[in-house]
Amino acid sequence: MAADNAPPVLLDLTIDNITPNTIRINDQSSDARLRYLMSRLVTHLHDFARETRLSTDEWVAAIGFLVSTGQICSDVRNEFILLSDILGLSLLVDSINHPKPAGSTEGSVLGPFHTHDAPTIENGASMTSDPEGEPMLALCRVVDPNGKPVAGVKVDIWETDSSGHYDVQHADRSAPSERCVMVTDEDGRFNFQGIKPVPYPIPHDGPVGKLLQRLGRHCWRPAHVHFMFEKKGWDHLITALYLRGDPYETSDAVFGVKKSLVIDLGRTDAATSAKHNIPEGSWLLEQEFVLVTEDESERLRDQNAINALKQLGLHMKLVDHLPVPEVD
Amino acid sequence: MAADNAPPVLLDLTIDNITPNTIRINDQSSDARLRYLMSRLVTHLHDFARETRLSTDEWVAAIGFLVSTGQICSDVRNEFILLSDILGLSLLVDSINHPKPAGSTEGSVLGPFHTHDAPTIENGASMTSDPEGEPMLALCRVVDPNGKPVAGVKVDIWETDSSGHYDVQHADRSAPSERCVMVTDEDGRFNFQGIKPVPYPIPHDGPVGKLLQRLGRHCWRPAHVHFMFEKKGWDHLITALYLRGDPYETSDAVFGVKKSLVIDLGRTDAATSAKHNIPEGSWLLEQEFVLVTEDESERLRDQNAINALKQLGLHMKLVDHLPVPEVD
Repeated sequence: MAADNAPPVLLDLTIDNITPNTIRINDQSSDARLRYLMSRLVTHLHDFARETRLSTDEWVAAIGFLVSTGQICSDVRNEFILLSDILGLSLLVDSINHPKPAGSTEGSVLGPFHTHDAPTIENGASMTSDPEGEPMLALCRVVDPNGKPVAGVKVDIWETDSSGHYDVQHADRSAPSERCVMVTDEDGRFNFQGIKPVPYPIPHDGPVGKLLQRLGRHCWRPAHVHFMFEKKGWDHLITALYLRGDPYETSDAVFGVKKSLVIDLGRTDAATSAKHNIPEGSWLLEQEFVLVTEDESERLRDQNAINALKQLGLHMKLVDHLPVPEVD
Repeated sequence: MAADNAPPVLLDLTIDNITPNTIRINDQSSDARLRYLMSRLVTHLHDFARETRLSTDEWVAAIGFLVSTGQICSDVRNEFILLSDILGLSLLVDSINHPKPAGSTEGSVLGPFHTHDAPTIENGASMTSDPEGEPMLALCRVVDPNGKPVAGVKVDIWETDSSGHYDVQHADRSAPSERCVMVTDEDGRFNFQGIKPVPYPIPHDGPVGKLLQRLGRHCWRPAHVHFMFEKKGWDHLITALYLRGDPYETSDAVFGVKKSLVIDLGRTDAATSAKHNIPEGSWLLEQEFVLVTEDESERLRDQNAINALKQLGLHMKLVDHLPVPEVD
C-alpha cells in the first residue's frame, strides 16, 4: 500500500467509489499507523454521510460549528476538548489508554482546565486564595497495589473557586489560584488545604453550550477535585474525586463519575485541626490513591487491544503498542 | 426516545457502555433528525477510537489539529471546507444532494473560494483584470434536458488569476477580480471574457497542507473555472469545467474531476473575435450546461436515499426529504 511511483488515477468519483479512492490516495503515506488511522477516519466519515444522507445545509452547519469551535479557543480555553468531553470521546480514550487493574484507582476526564503554571507547594500548605470557599483539609497518600507507599510522585491538583470557576475563566487572572503541584513524601503522603468543591456548569457561552442546549442536556458537572499523578515508571493517572450526594452525581455533562471515585467528606476534629493548622470542624478529605506501574498498565492495554480487535474481526498487529493492519 | 422527566443515570462509564449512554443522553433532544445525526456521529466517533485503540498522544494531536484548523480560518479562508474537500466529504455530500439524471450537467466541488461580493456584469462583458492571463472567450448556454433554453438563471463564475491565486488569497485585495455574476438571456446564453485557467496548489501553508504532506499527497488542482447556477424551481448546480491534458487531470487534490466536465478549449476565429471584441486566436470555451428542475432532482434524491438506506439495512422514513428512524 506504500507509495508507488505514480499516484492512483482519480476520476468520476461517486457516492459509491469515493471511499476506496480517498483511502487509496492517502495510502501513499509511508507511515503505516497514519494510513490505518486515515482509512478508518475516512470510512467512518463517509459512512456517516451515506447513512444520514447528510444534506448540504447540515454540512454547511457542521462546517460553521467547527469553525466557531476553533475560533473561540484561546490560551486558556479549548473548546475542542470540551466537545470531545461532552461526546464521551475523552472518557473513552482515557479508558482505552489507562486500563486499571482491579484495586487500583480509576481514571476520570482531564477536562480543559489543567494548566502548566501551577505553583509547587510544600506538603501541608494551602492552594486556596478564595476567602468565600469552605476550608477543606486533604490528607492523601499514594501507594502501589500492595499498599507500599510511592514517594516522589508529582501530583497536580486543581479545582474551581467557590463561584464554580477555574482561575483561567476569570478575565483578570493575574496568577494561578485553586491549583498546585505537590510531591509525595517518603511515606507517599501529600496533604494540602483547599476548599470544598462545588458543582459548576462547563463553559456554555460557546458552540458546545449551544449544542448541549439543542440536545436538551444540562451543562453541569458535579462537585469534584482534579488530580494528576506522574512518576517515571508509573502509569500516568488522571482522575478526580466526586462528592457523594451532589445533584449532578449521576448526570455529569462529561461522563466522568465512577462509583469508586465518589467520596464522603468528613470534619476535622480538634487534634487534626491543631496539627494541620485549620479551624476545627473544617471539611476533611481523606484518600488513598493506588498507582500501577507503566509496565503493568501497558501489558493490560496491549492485551485489551488484542482481545478487542479480535472481537471486532480485525487482523491487526501491535507496533509500538498501537494497532496496524497485519497484512499491509 | 424523546425527553423523559429525569435524565438517564450516567455512572461507571467504560469502553463498552459509553456509546449507548452518550446516545441515551443526547436522545433527550426533541428534534428527531438531530437525534439520528448525533447517534450516528457518536457511534462512528467511538467505533473509530475503539478500532484504532486511539492513543492519548494521537487524541492530543487531533485536538491540536482541529484547534489550529479553526484558528487559521478568517473571512476569506475556510480551512474546514478545505479539510472536507481533501477527505472526499465535499464530493460525497454534493453527490448525495444533487444527483444528476443522465444527460444533465454533473456537479463538482464548491471549494472554499466562492464569495458573495462578485459584481454582476452584462452579458458579454469581461470579468478579468489580470493583464498576465491568456485571454479566453466563453460562449455558454443553459438549457433543460430537452434542449430548451433556460432564461434568467443567475450564474456565479470564478477562477484564479494567472498566478494560480483567487483574489481573496491576495492580502491587498481591494475589490473582487476574476469573478462575476451573470444572468442568462432569453436564449439561455451567457458570454463572458476571462483568462485561460491554470493549475494551482490549494492553500498548503496551514494544517490541511501539513496533513497532505504527511500523507504523501500533492496539493494541486487541475486548471478549471467554477460555475454555480441558481434559479427558483431549478436544482442548484455547483460545477466546474476542467481543461483536458492538465498534469493534475487525474489526481485532483479534492476529487472534483469528472470526465463529462473535462473540455477542450478552441481558438477564436476572425469573425467571432470581431463580434466579441477579443483578439483573434484567443482561447475559446464553448459549453452547454443542462439544468434539471428541483422537483426532478428531489424525486431522484429521495429515491436514491430510500434505496441506499434499504441496502444498508436501515429502517428509515423520510421527513422533509431527510431520513429519521422509522420507529422512534
